[in-house]
Amino acid sequence: MSAEAELPLSKVEQEEGAIFAPRFSADGLVTAVVTDVADNHVLMVAHMNREALQLTLDTGIAHYWSRSRKALWKKGETSGNMQQVQEIRVDCDQDALWLRVSVQGDGVTCHTNRRSCFYRAVTGSGATTALVPAQD
Amino acid sequence: MSAEAELPLSKVEQEEGAIFAPRFSADGLVTAVVTDVADNHVLMVAHMNREALQLTLDTGIAHYWSRSRKALWKKGETSGNMQQVQEIRVDCDQDALWLRVSVQGDGVTCHTNRRSCFYRAVTGSGATTALVPAQD
Repeated sequence: MSAEAELPLSKVEQEEGAIFAPRFSADGLVTAVVTDVADNHVLMVAHMNREALQLTLDTGIAHYWSRSRKALWKKGETSGNMQQVQEIRVDCDQDALWLRVSVQGDGVTCHTNRRSCFYRAVTGSGATTALVPAQD
Repeated sequence: MSAEAELPLSKVEQEEGAIFAPRFSADGLVTAVVTDVADNHVLMVAHMNREALQLTLDTGIAHYWSRSRKALWKKGETSGNMQQVQEIRVDCDQDALWLRVSVQGDGVTCHTNRRSCFYRAVTGSGATTALVPAQD
């Protein structure tokens, strides 16, 4: 069974309807923002193809498509930091997903061994732009 | 002046360094996750080209690239709901940005007149998948 409707929806159906019909890009992917359900901290941005989304819906564990490895990716399968999906939201035009997750294991999401992939903030502008450690 | 370094960085420099060198995709865009700085609620997912990012850094007001209109987009310019950028974070491989913003005006981000574009949650799986209003 497919997770999504196959027919194109009208703009009203897409934005206000109850049919989940994610719009995959030309390369077959939809963007997924992943946050900690406890505090909405952004942990990572990833991509899902249709199969990854279906596996996520079927298992409750987040699966993605690794663009670098060109392979399905059960996030945390090796490290133990799998993502238990508490809620999936979709945006108005259904081309982006928001996954609210609980991270298992030691709570690390980034391959650099940090909680979040977003561990640096931009300071300054122009020629003085630089990155500094984010505060939380 | 450019906001970003022009030379490719090593993996260590990209992930651990202080040089802001966002990696634009083949179509010249980088993904931006936009959250409310007050509570990290995800408001929208958008895209920036180099010019939009530069304008954002220079003005402190979020600018994007509208893929549908193929034009620079000063978010909220018409509605008054402009986004004052409090912080920009970048992820480990510098191909995604996290903008933490304060929304001006009446606090609406979505063109459907809602606070966030993510106003629906996915329920069920398989043939029973449907969208319901999100709880907050």
